[in-house]
Amino acid sequence: MADPRFFDRAGPYSLAALAELSGARLLDPRDGERRFDDVAPLEIAGPGDVTFLDNRKYVDAFSRSRAGAAFVDERAVDKAPAGMALLIAPDPYKGFARAAQAFYPDRAAAPRRAASAIIDPTASVPSDCDIGAHVVIEAGVRLGARCRIGPNTVIGAGAELGEDCLVGANVTLSHCIIGARVVLHPGVRIGQPGFGFAPDPQGPVKIPQLGRVIIGDDSDIGANTTIDRGSGHDTVVGPGTMIDNLVQIGHNVVLGRGCILAGQAGISGSTKLGDYVMVGGQVGMAGHLRIGNGARIAATSGVMRDVEAGSTVCGSPAVPIALFMKQVAILQRLAKKKDGR
Amino acid sequence: MADPRFFDRAGPYSLAALAELSGARLLDPRDGERRFDDVAPLEIAGPGDVTFLDNRKYVDAFSRSRAGAAFVDERAVDKAPAGMALLIAPDPYKGFARAAQAFYPDRAAAPRRAASAIIDPTASVPSDCDIGAHVVIEAGVRLGARCRIGPNTVIGAGAELGEDCLVGANVTLSHCIIGARVVLHPGVRIGQPGFGFAPDPQGPVKIPQLGRVIIGDDSDIGANTTIDRGSGHDTVVGPGTMIDNLVQIGHNVVLGRGCILAGQAGISGSTKLGDYVMVGGQVGMAGHLRIGNGARIAATSGVMRDVEAGSTVCGSPAVPIALFMKQVAILQRLAKKKDGR
Amino acid sequence: MADPRFFDRAGPYSLAALAELSGARLLDPRDGERRFDDVAPLEIAGPGDVTFLDNRKYVDAFSRSRAGAAFVDERAVDKAPAGMALLIAPDPYKGFARAAQAFYPDRAAAPRRAASAIIDPTASVPSDCDIGAHVVIEAGVRLGARCRIGPNTVIGAGAELGEDCLVGANVTLSHCIIGARVVLHPGVRIGQPGFGFAPDPQGPVKIPQLGRVIIGDDSDIGANTTIDRGSGHDTVVGPGTMIDNLVQIGHNVVLGRGCILAGQAGISGSTKLGDYVMVGGQVGMAGHLRIGNGARIAATSGVMRDVEAGSTVCGSPAVPIALFMKQVAILQRLAKKKDGR
Repeated sequence: MADPRFFDRAGPYSLAALAELSGARLLDPRDGERRFDDVAPLEIAGPGDVTFLDNRKYVDAFSRSRAGAAFVDERAVDKAPAGMALLIAPDPYKGFARAAQAFYPDRAAAPRRAASAIIDPTASVPSDCDIGAHVVIEAGVRLGARCRIGPNTVIGAGAELGEDCLVGANVTLSHCIIGARVVLHPGVRIGQPGFGFAPDPQGPVKIPQLGRVIIGDDSDIGANTTIDRGSGHDTVVGPGTMIDNLVQIGHNVVLGRGCILAGQAGISGSTKLGDYVMVGGQVGMAGHLRIGNGARIAATSGVMRDVEAGSTVCGSPAVPIALFMKQVAILQRLAKKKDGR
Repeated sequence: MADPRFFDRAGPYSLAALAELSGARLLDPRDGERRFDDVAPLEIAGPGDVTFLDNRKYVDAFSRSRAGAAFVDERAVDKAPAGMALLIAPDPYKGFARAAQAFYPDRAAAPRRAASAIIDPTASVPSDCDIGAHVVIEAGVRLGARCRIGPNTVIGAGAELGEDCLVGANVTLSHCIIGARVVLHPGVRIGQPGFGFAPDPQGPVKIPQLGRVIIGDDSDIGANTTIDRGSGHDTVVGPGTMIDNLVQIGHNVVLGRGCILAGQAGISGSTKLGDYVMVGGQVGMAGHLRIGNGARIAATSGVMRDVEAGSTVCGSPAVPIALFMKQVAILQRLAKKKDGR
Repeated sequence: MADPRFFDRAGPYSLAALAELSGARLLDPRDGERRFDDVAPLEIAGPGDVTFLDNRKYVDAFSRSRAGAAFVDERAVDKAPAGMALLIAPDPYKGFARAAQAFYPDRAAAPRRAASAIIDPTASVPSDCDIGAHVVIEAGVRLGARCRIGPNTVIGAGAELGEDCLVGANVTLSHCIIGARVVLHPGVRIGQPGFGFAPDPQGPVKIPQLGRVIIGDDSDIGANTTIDRGSGHDTVVGPGTMIDNLVQIGHNVVLGRGCILAGQAGISGSTKLGDYVMVGGQVGMAGHLRIGNGARIAATSGVMRDVEAGSTVCGSPAVPIALFMKQVAILQRLAKKKDGR
């Protein structure tokens, strides 16, 4: 059970209700009336908890689990312990997500405006927003309805946020236009000037960075991630794109719709990703590249060239994954020969 | 045109004036009287805009551009569309930078001292400084004339900044001596103790970190970058050195003059870079190395040994770039053979 | 001598006293009465300073050093310049650390509660804590005795910290239970939701992140490092574990006791490290791995598989270090052959 100091639980729910809201199918419809109090991971779930099995690594733990019910796919049915009610879903993790959302709905924030917040009189801040302590909102800022702004966050002059944005503490925003329902975690930096200068014997000549950052609806930006504003064009994050912690997005980068960027990835200036691109952790990309729709870049790869839509690349410099695996195998075989020749 | 919510434009300027201030040469001197309103990238520039061509990848876009004028080098002259006035410069990007600076001069900040700033009475803060909301300036701090300090920034006891520094929001400074005209972007952390301890069965023994961070004039430090103070020696960033976002600089590191460090690079303790060293994104360097003047380290490289002045290295472990390219080629050739032998 | 603007020095101390507190042995017991004023690095130490030699790279500097005394191991005795008193220790760096702690003890903070701090009435904050300017402490937070909280730091509802914690400026904490004597450097983010969602054509479905972050006693977390809370299990950092700057710790990660993680390392969700694991800079680890006690991961490695206790791995994908060295050697030999075959 989640620590009540940090989380408020709803429920209980019947399995029938959970099946309905998650789109899962009850293996045994007679389980529909059973009521559950909570969600929990495999290893710690008890008879009143709903769990899930998603990763084959955990099949043994699943078979030993004391959970009363579980979201699983068809193939895992025969691994279930006796008495466990099964919710069959093609994507058990998604089914579990829906159930967990029901048990732990977002806390409804009471609108509040901290007395210590400094809000410029020309800023537009709807009365149903929640503005934390020591927040600074500069001239001309426009917030949408129901935005929640965490303590010590600074929103620079002219920035716009859509409805229902959730901005963490200690965030810095400037030169940006942000859509609705966007989540920005603590320490995010958006809109500072990009790394733009021309070398010169007298010292680098800085290029004024005259673009903005445009963030699409429903995006989610991780803690301490940095997104520089464009130099002339805008830097763009497409709707529904998920960016993890400590990611660097250079100026003029364009990320399409529904992209996923794992932690510590870095995208150099003016590179453009299509839609639904998946970027692994610590991936680095050179500047001015094109990455096609649905491409996948394996973790820690260094991408120096364009990547075709739908392809998977790996390595540094990144190559198609089949070629990468062959390179690895050859190198290991050579190294294992006695004299290495 | 840059979004007027975020940028204030000056001008218009005649091409003759732009040629003069940028050191460029008008291909056709008769264009000198033509007046321009703005700068813009190739793809969106119109007849009243000045643009530039710097990267051969964009020659086609250049040939189709509607821009009224462009900074180009000699070789691009015959690619220009009809009617475009040409400003010839050996480094078109630098010429454009000068023009853009003229159209978008830094906003002159009105001196201001936010009522919510907490400034220790022993700190020296000239009256022409701009001190943002909720700034904290501790005992003995000394700021130079015309410094601008963003909201929610904390300057720890005894720190010094030279004239005309620009410090973003949510920055933390301590144990540092910072030169003139230095720019620190949001979320920068300077002066915290480095990663220093001796392992011990009873738990690590921490070594007091007794040095400082010294930052030279005209340096620029990117968002969320961290620079630890020295352990006994100082950590030093030379004048005119440009550091991008999310870079880690360990204790006792010395960066020379005019170095360029791209995003997410990391330099381990006590490594010393000469002048004008270029470090690509996500490069990692071991500790206690010497990197000679003018060396170049390709992006994502892992540097385990000293690097000679003027050389270019690549890979992990990093080797001279010619050797790296050969290694890549061999591996690809082996992998493409049918049986991989 | 450390800059008195930033550091307060104690002493002087006799060598006998320094030998006693550090566990070192005086090579010449007659030196016991000599008194010293300070510690300093080899290159700048003078006759009144104590220094150390730890890294063989600096033997020449040691032989030329003007320091009056030095911590060294037995093997360095004959490299010492004439007249230098020698403190013999199996781990000279640790001996020096103890001496430096004596000369530069932690500043005893006067308990203080900044008027601008916003402390919820339901929070428990002992009167001997030092609470900086603009700190925000939300409902139900519990601080241990003598905690020091830096300016502009935000501690979210329900969080707990043990005694004698030292939290830097501009830190964000939530959903966490933190032990005693933990040090959190500026810009640390602890407790934000992890990167958890299930892909869906209608946009990613977020999984409520219902766990916490548990930090053991005596841990040390570097500037701008991010530690996500667990998704159901907790994210755990064991006691005495040292984490450098800009490190990413994903949800459900477990770090054992006494681990060392260098800068910019990243550990993906649900990976578990045993005790005393050493992780080099910029290492990336995939999710759901097991890393055995005492394993060592070389800098910049990409770890895709479990690592056995006590082993050392290197490369991307990481392999045992002997195999890695062979791979490097083979590749270099092939590349140096005239035709590369």
